[in-house]
Amino acid sequence: MQVVVNISLKEGVLDPQGRAIEHSLRGLGFQEVSEVRVGKQITLDIDESDPARLRQRVARMCETLLSNTVIEDYVIDIVEQE
Amino acid sequence: MQVVVNISLKEGVLDPQGRAIEHSLRGLGFQEVSEVRVGKQITLDIDESDPARLRQRVARMCETLLSNTVIEDYVIDIVEQE
Repeated sequence: MQVVVNISLKEGVLDPQGRAIEHSLRGLGFQEVSEVRVGKQITLDIDESDPARLRQRVARMCETLLSNTVIEDYVIDIVEQE
Repeated sequence: MQVVVNISLKEGVLDPQGRAIEHSLRGLGFQEVSEVRVGKQITLDIDESDPARLRQRVARMCETLLSNTVIEDYVIDIVEQE
């Protein structure tokens, strides 16, 4: 099964990368931009057919390696196979 | 309006970061993992109410700054306001 994990900075955590992008976009004439936040999107193929167990394992992966749970939140989406 | 832009490497482009994560996850005992791909998710607040113009402007931002269109694809999602 394919899983998409979106990892984003927690509310209130400073996002210097987002600030830099916002500043650059405004400098390029995109004045209508504000509040830029940058996160990671990780796509994984997992050899597990049970959705509940799959979600549990991916949560473990997030807690163990993929995200820094002190400053980041993660959202797990299981991609329905056609 | 809030917009989410997902930027990912094009099919066939080597993803060393994804490979490193896959290798680490397997080393941590998550043998069921394969095909790890890492992308960026950028969230922006845009002062533009017309969805068509909004999409056009964000596409320009992607082409100009946010993505490297030689090796990356981007997908623009407009977040419906409650």
